[in-house]
Amino acid sequence: MNEFAYSYPVKTYFGQGAAAKALPAELAKVGEKVLLAYGGGSIKNNGIYDEMVSILKEAGKIVIEFSGIMSNPTYKKVQEGAKLCKEEQIDFILAVGGGSVIDCCKIVAVQARTEEDIWEMEFTKHRFPTQALPMGAVVTASGTGAEQNAGAVITNEEKKIKAGVFGTYAEFAVLDPAYTLSVPFGQVVSGAFDTLSHCMETYFGKPQETFLSDEINEAVMRNTIGNIRSLMKNPEDLYARGELMWDSAMAENGILKIGKVTDFQAHQIEHQLGAYTDCNHGQGLAVIHPVLYRHIYKEGLEKFKRFAIKVWDIPLEGKTDEELALAGIDALADFIKEIKLPTTLTEMGITDHSILKAVAESSNITAGCCKKLTSQEIEEILKECR
Amino acid sequence: MNEFAYSYPVKTYFGQGAAAKALPAELAKVGEKVLLAYGGGSIKNNGIYDEMVSILKEAGKIVIEFSGIMSNPTYKKVQEGAKLCKEEQIDFILAVGGGSVIDCCKIVAVQARTEEDIWEMEFTKHRFPTQALPMGAVVTASGTGAEQNAGAVITNEEKKIKAGVFGTYAEFAVLDPAYTLSVPFGQVVSGAFDTLSHCMETYFGKPQETFLSDEINEAVMRNTIGNIRSLMKNPEDLYARGELMWDSAMAENGILKIGKVTDFQAHQIEHQLGAYTDCNHGQGLAVIHPVLYRHIYKEGLEKFKRFAIKVWDIPLEGKTDEELALAGIDALADFIKEIKLPTTLTEMGITDHSILKAVAESSNITAGCCKKLTSQEIEEILKECR
Repeated sequence: MNEFAYSYPVKTYFGQGAAAKALPAELAKVGEKVLLAYGGGSIKNNGIYDEMVSILKEAGKIVIEFSGIMSNPTYKKVQEGAKLCKEEQIDFILAVGGGSVIDCCKIVAVQARTEEDIWEMEFTKHRFPTQALPMGAVVTASGTGAEQNAGAVITNEEKKIKAGVFGTYAEFAVLDPAYTLSVPFGQVVSGAFDTLSHCMETYFGKPQETFLSDEINEAVMRNTIGNIRSLMKNPEDLYARGELMWDSAMAENGILKIGKVTDFQAHQIEHQLGAYTDCNHGQGLAVIHPVLYRHIYKEGLEKFKRFAIKVWDIPLEGKTDEELALAGIDALADFIKEIKLPTTLTEMGITDHSILKAVAESSNITAGCCKKLTSQEIEEILKECR
Repeated sequence: MNEFAYSYPVKTYFGQGAAAKALPAELAKVGEKVLLAYGGGSIKNNGIYDEMVSILKEAGKIVIEFSGIMSNPTYKKVQEGAKLCKEEQIDFILAVGGGSVIDCCKIVAVQARTEEDIWEMEFTKHRFPTQALPMGAVVTASGTGAEQNAGAVITNEEKKIKAGVFGTYAEFAVLDPAYTLSVPFGQVVSGAFDTLSHCMETYFGKPQETFLSDEINEAVMRNTIGNIRSLMKNPEDLYARGELMWDSAMAENGILKIGKVTDFQAHQIEHQLGAYTDCNHGQGLAVIHPVLYRHIYKEGLEKFKRFAIKVWDIPLEGKTDEELALAGIDALADFIKEIKLPTTLTEMGITDHSILKAVAESSNITAGCCKKLTSQEIEEILKECR
């Protein structure tokens, strides 16, 4: 285990009816003008919008709306939100949605408190914001764990880069499994696969030796897999939805990352795929993961072997270490088919394969991956994904 | 999983040399007058005292010492510390020690900020303190997880009650595995068993159904058991000591308790045993646990069965549920012998068994235990422990 400094500043409220129970006290702590931020308007159909407005009015707040936050939120949208916060002198942001809305708001919150351009600040000047508008998150679609950390994935359309930007933590997060019921089922599964990806990308990081963080991670992975299976059988299963919400939080609240340098190579490749195609994040990960792992497993053989045994319950008998490791990756690939996620880029609707070279060349190479890939190898991986 | 609200406000620094790296920045945030709190003076022999004084001086602090905090810290000692804080107008408490020192300071910190008697406030008026002196913890003996939560176990000698008092969270905790090297080895093992006890007392809480918190808990229990075994082979093993330090933190940072009502019946009985005999906490737990579990397992059969399989690796074949559950408790009892903890009160040096009735009658009955015990049954349990 590497040395670490750990903090977890997000107060998390979980359970059915959590918003009505938690928000009044939390809103009492913040100023009068609240930015109610949300996505394409689905919360207007499922009643969550009305509930939020009523809770905010009850708390005596002046509500300014910021809507239309898209999946793969853009830097332009961030600037629009920040401008609105400045003009309206917003005191607090309430982000209501999935990872896209919450990520967008985490960067709006810091951009609203500085005149410097945040992208410029972080990527050119390598400085990080120190001030932010306070914000809270009400999670309606789970999987990204965006409500648990300070990072945000934002697409800079001009630069064709989808990248992790450092923003702010939510003061609190509300996780109500019933809020996820109106999310299209494919998105629920794709979100849950994002959780599994976060776990794997942490598990296969460095050091490779297995310690407490990895053993806890195995528990979270098994739980995630089991509850996706429960949900495939009964999409209304609120118990499974609740477990998956907390799996998602656990995968990104930092506990699994303790003492580790994470991998996140699949995420880096997927982000650039997203920058070029605006594709669905969980689907992109589902296509990339098995192919990537077949390219790198020899450099992380012990861990891939353990992954097969502990997460996929592959029996040891008569298998070499390589066979075991590959059996684990096969089990992952089979699971992806079982839960009806796509297995190729074409299946995802990405048919213009001329972009793959540019995707590969713009993908970050991570320090935590057991094999340091080259751009050429990433291109090969992407071609195998076709 | 029950509904929950979770927060974890302690910034935790882990690793060899963590104090020298973390303290300067943390001390820069606090006022000038620091109470340096410690126990019987062992930190003067192992160099930690000198290191702390030097870091504090370097940070420009005026240091006031509060020493002699005993194991099973007393309410009288709390009052002494609070008086000192008021007289010296202390700005910050730096607790350097194990659970006793840290627990004592968590209550000193709240008592220092109120004229009301804290015991009276919490146990008679059922109100809780809202203000506290800020404090930090440097952990030199691990197991209690005291640095991770706001509760503190304090002995009121006059009332013959050893009870959990609600105090304050440390702002930060420093966990350096090398700091535990000079702790007597028996105490290291007894502390690690306290960690295992915290895990078990959470695991066997309510609801009995198994969910993510329990699956994570199983990982922490297996890791704790494995690393105690490593340490029995090589007491100098810093890797194992580090894992046990983080196990101890994980057992008490609230993650395992999420969605649960904890049991803590063994702790309640042990606390009163401690109030009457000033015995070693981990040893008391080691004696009580197997006997208690044989009394209650039928009411939590599914979970005790799972405990046997998942934590102790007991093979299923040919066993009834009861046999499996009992095999798990036997494995726990065997482990206690294996790691050379006492198995009877007499072995612990508690030979005056006339106190057991009073211990039983003053022990709290917990709501989380799968079987609601009576005082008479607790007395029987204690008699079986003789």
